[in-house]
Amino acid sequence: MRATTIHAPRDIRVSDVDDPTITAPTDAVIKVTAGCICGSDLWPYRGENNIDAGSTIGHECVGVVEEVGSEVTSFRPGDFVIVPFDHCDNTCAHCRAGVQSACTNLGFTASGQAEYALVTQAEGSLVKTDGMPDASLIPSLLTLSDVMATGWHAAVTAGVRAGGTAVVVGDGAVGLCGVLAAHVMGAEKVVALSRHEPRQEIARHFGATHIVPERDDAATEALMEITEGVGADAVLECVGTDQAMKTAFAVARPGATVGFVGVPHGVELPIRRMFQRNVGLAGGMAPVRRYLPELLKLVQEGTIDPGLVFDLTLPLDQVADGYRAMDERRAIKVLIQP
Amino acid sequence: MRATTIHAPRDIRVSDVDDPTITAPTDAVIKVTAGCICGSDLWPYRGENNIDAGSTIGHECVGVVEEVGSEVTSFRPGDFVIVPFDHCDNTCAHCRAGVQSACTNLGFTASGQAEYALVTQAEGSLVKTDGMPDASLIPSLLTLSDVMATGWHAAVTAGVRAGGTAVVVGDGAVGLCGVLAAHVMGAEKVVALSRHEPRQEIARHFGATHIVPERDDAATEALMEITEGVGADAVLECVGTDQAMKTAFAVARPGATVGFVGVPHGVELPIRRMFQRNVGLAGGMAPVRRYLPELLKLVQEGTIDPGLVFDLTLPLDQVADGYRAMDERRAIKVLIQP
Repeated sequence: MRATTIHAPRDIRVSDVDDPTITAPTDAVIKVTAGCICGSDLWPYRGENNIDAGSTIGHECVGVVEEVGSEVTSFRPGDFVIVPFDHCDNTCAHCRAGVQSACTNLGFTASGQAEYALVTQAEGSLVKTDGMPDASLIPSLLTLSDVMATGWHAAVTAGVRAGGTAVVVGDGAVGLCGVLAAHVMGAEKVVALSRHEPRQEIARHFGATHIVPERDDAATEALMEITEGVGADAVLECVGTDQAMKTAFAVARPGATVGFVGVPHGVELPIRRMFQRNVGLAGGMAPVRRYLPELLKLVQEGTIDPGLVFDLTLPLDQVADGYRAMDERRAIKVLIQP
Repeated sequence: MRATTIHAPRDIRVSDVDDPTITAPTDAVIKVTAGCICGSDLWPYRGENNIDAGSTIGHECVGVVEEVGSEVTSFRPGDFVIVPFDHCDNTCAHCRAGVQSACTNLGFTASGQAEYALVTQAEGSLVKTDGMPDASLIPSLLTLSDVMATGWHAAVTAGVRAGGTAVVVGDGAVGLCGVLAAHVMGAEKVVALSRHEPRQEIARHFGATHIVPERDDAATEALMEITEGVGADAVLECVGTDQAMKTAFAVARPGATVGFVGVPHGVELPIRRMFQRNVGLAGGMAPVRRYLPELLKLVQEGTIDPGLVFDLTLPLDQVADGYRAMDERRAIKVLIQP
């Protein structure tokens, strides 16, 4: 099949690789309808993570079941499914506790930007729609494989409450989905930190009540004014850098929690400040499967339209252009059509 | 008055200092019935914190109101009161949110090991008993000024739940109080990490169902066996060192929270592990006033007897011996009688 592969920093290609096949009874092969590029794909792209030269890349997709292993009984060829980037059996102690991202049989989608993808725990991971969804819904359904579920996880772990103030650090696709999540959860004030007009616009559409274009100390000042000197009830850290984390802790009110979902890179946590102000940290890799039924319902009933984060759609052939566009922040998030 | 003062590392004296006086309408002066030495007093004692030579030391006490400022209306001379180490107005936004330790008018007891102590926000901070308590209750009431409330805070922020497993890292007085708190909150398994027989005994009395004398990797192994490979539902970190924190995160199950109350010294948080396993961190300086009414009730009805952590009582004259005994771990916690 044709699949996106990475060979070195900034060297993204479309290569012919072996088709995924069923090797375990829990496997399923998915024919990808749509995949996309994740902010976290940019870490290896920028050379900040190790690269296994020639390996496939891409962990977000939706598609149609092509073939299933013998233990997969709830899905059959032809089903349209959302594929959580983190595969889980949904039966182990960690899954039952709602932490499917720490499943004892954890697996990951490895070729989401490709013609086919393998799911290692299909029965526990996949969620299907009733029949083929309308093409207009595909982008929003695709976000449920990672980005929307991750933004939702940030809001859940930050403890967003109805009537409270939620601050979202990061205006990437995850941050924007975090804005949407905080809005749906009923936060009265939803503050998006963003200096980019197209992102501000989506943030507003997703329910941001305030936009703060400032950074660092100036951002903290602006947020303290918005919260009347108290600080935010919940902070969603959707970047993963030290600067973003510092801002998150600076604006959290005493007793609040920073919900973090950006893969941490070079982060040093301000533990003294956390201690003195009782500001907690929670979050991590999103247990996508946990949120899927609820999020699918919200998409299908039209309550949320997270697919708006895709501002560029490219055929698989041009996937390298998609990486460049995201790297240069010309695109928020790129949908790839195999 | 006579008060404990610190002059250099390991140089504790009893000195004549000025009596505290009312200088603000929110002040009260307390005649100390009993004070005590805190594990955190050992940081300056050991030279690991800065020392303001000749300053008074000691932040835990109970006593009798001697004099009150004009705005203190709920207390009058003769009332027996518990003095939270962290003074709060109990009316600001942070107090109303239950984070009295971040009160906008925060103050601290500065001469708890002395004849008199000043409370800067008496109305918001103090809690009184009905009449003079029986002498046998004084030790337990004294623990409510800090150590028991702090152990309780560890359990609250770790999210101890009825039927769950709680692991307590640290067998100092705070850790032992954490054991008691987890037990009272209904944890089915309460695991105390302790290698010291007298402390193990108190832990058992306080409700520990398991004692783990091992440390580091061996402790983790033992705890994984106790939790059938899953890890602890809640972890109380009651030390503040990097080693204790590492153990805490090693034994927390995915999705759990480490509740930390030990003043952090040289702690480096394992943020990658936190991310991958969704293990959160919460806690900090205890909002003592928040818990006082509930804890006072538990002491008065005989449900808890945290005063057992005091295994040495000394007159103020011998306070330096008390520091030595705690520093050398010959005593768990020392009660000082002025």
